[in-house]
Amino acid sequence: MHYPERVSIFEVGPRDGLQNESQPLSVAQKVQLIESLQDIGCQRIEAGSFVSPKWVPQMADSAKVFTQIKRQTGVVYSALTPNLRGLEDAIAVGVDEVAVFAGASEAFSQKNINCSIAESIERFKPVLALAQHHSLPVRGYVSTVLGCPYQGEVDIHQVKSLTETLLTLGCYEVSLGDTIGVGTPKATAELLSLLTKDIPVDRLAVHFHNTYGQALANILIALQHGVTTIDSAIAGLGGCPYAKGASGNVATEDVVYMCENMGIDTGIDLAAAVDVSKEICTILKKPVQSNVSQAL
Amino acid sequence: MHYPERVSIFEVGPRDGLQNESQPLSVAQKVQLIESLQDIGCQRIEAGSFVSPKWVPQMADSAKVFTQIKRQTGVVYSALTPNLRGLEDAIAVGVDEVAVFAGASEAFSQKNINCSIAESIERFKPVLALAQHHSLPVRGYVSTVLGCPYQGEVDIHQVKSLTETLLTLGCYEVSLGDTIGVGTPKATAELLSLLTKDIPVDRLAVHFHNTYGQALANILIALQHGVTTIDSAIAGLGGCPYAKGASGNVATEDVVYMCENMGIDTGIDLAAAVDVSKEICTILKKPVQSNVSQAL
Repeated sequence: MHYPERVSIFEVGPRDGLQNESQPLSVAQKVQLIESLQDIGCQRIEAGSFVSPKWVPQMADSAKVFTQIKRQTGVVYSALTPNLRGLEDAIAVGVDEVAVFAGASEAFSQKNINCSIAESIERFKPVLALAQHHSLPVRGYVSTVLGCPYQGEVDIHQVKSLTETLLTLGCYEVSLGDTIGVGTPKATAELLSLLTKDIPVDRLAVHFHNTYGQALANILIALQHGVTTIDSAIAGLGGCPYAKGASGNVATEDVVYMCENMGIDTGIDLAAAVDVSKEICTILKKPVQSNVSQAL
Repeated sequence: MHYPERVSIFEVGPRDGLQNESQPLSVAQKVQLIESLQDIGCQRIEAGSFVSPKWVPQMADSAKVFTQIKRQTGVVYSALTPNLRGLEDAIAVGVDEVAVFAGASEAFSQKNINCSIAESIERFKPVLALAQHHSLPVRGYVSTVLGCPYQGEVDIHQVKSLTETLLTLGCYEVSLGDTIGVGTPKATAELLSLLTKDIPVDRLAVHFHNTYGQALANILIALQHGVTTIDSAIAGLGGCPYAKGASGNVATEDVVYMCENMGIDTGIDLAAAVDVSKEICTILKKPVQSNVSQAL
């Protein structure tokens, strides 16, 4: 079995993670977290989101966060920008990269962003056009790729079609999200086998939640398929609003432990990551959702 | 990738699990747990251990437990019997199967059972001979196969040699234990590739602890190598006396979730397993160490 020599960890803790935590952080605490993450070796950090504070109050201060980070050369600070207003706000504070978000399930799209999948694509078009005008790389997220909290099964051909659309519209990469964490390795393999028939694997990233404990097994399948970008959140930050239980994103330190011990370079210092994980969980007054950080 | 159509779950919660829990259970509570496990479809249950109560006080009442279980046809009730005295006691209460235990690490063997690996093999010989005399199947455990808390690295050729010795001496199967949970998929693959060169894969079982969150990824590798017997403990019972953190054995319900959703039959009713998991954790006054049981 062939594995990549190195992988790129896309750290989503400060956005996807904190957005789903009940305890709010101050701007200073968010900046501190992001700077700690760059110090341990994270080179791609989703640092905030430019959306209506009515919908996502946890991210209302993203502009301030971006302004205050002491940025390091070589680190990419990205933000979720679902609409033109958000993109303009993100450009104003100098984000390095932005991201758009689509659901692979019609029911999820309707419930989550109040429009059909087709309508969501129409909404992205001006966002992608403006981003291109500013030479800003755009990342695409496709959610509910292995299951939907409303409709259950999701057609992997729909995932493929949506992924291809996002790439055609100009996304440099699409992150495939198992939003509710229900996927298992066989389904992950089927999805990636289908997508990589026509999509170069270096245009794909994977984004697993550990709700049912399957995240690392699914990431292993992704590595076996040649995927080299893995989304994760320090301390397993975040929850899943659609499933009970405490588990959110797969923990960065668990991914780093697995990869580094398999000889796959992540560029991240594991011991330092565990320290950051414990610090942020102390601030959030919650137990760390990482087996590695619990053990070390 | 080819996966087995079905796997045999070897439930170790009532022995390996409870032995490492601080909260003691009464005989009635242990019997209740074992009967619940048979009710949800577990067909192989390690129900106790016949060792000196001085060393393992949690298992001092195993004879009473075996006497009181209302046994079901088709279910195998096994016990750990490290010496002749233990085996005689086990035979007296009519166990279906016994097990012996060896460390693959010299340092672990010395610290854990106070003898060299070679001496531990000599000690097994009369146990295996008497078991054969009584037509009692013997299972072998090899521990620390992917790392040792005292010496660190463990030579996989040593694991192979010890496994072959146990099979030659009469064990029908050897369970390979990552006692401290440090193994990752590449190491698991290297170990199983080496062993299956000369050992039929149906003579091997795997026994993973989830200390570093790697258990399901390692089990996935085992399935890819054709292994069809997986040790697990309901609710992830047990701890690891050699590593901090709460995680013990991989949780039966997490294994069942992964397998069943991959189309691999386990014979176990997942929803009922989650109920048993929650009940035993209520009795033990501890949080359930299973992502699936937390989510469902």
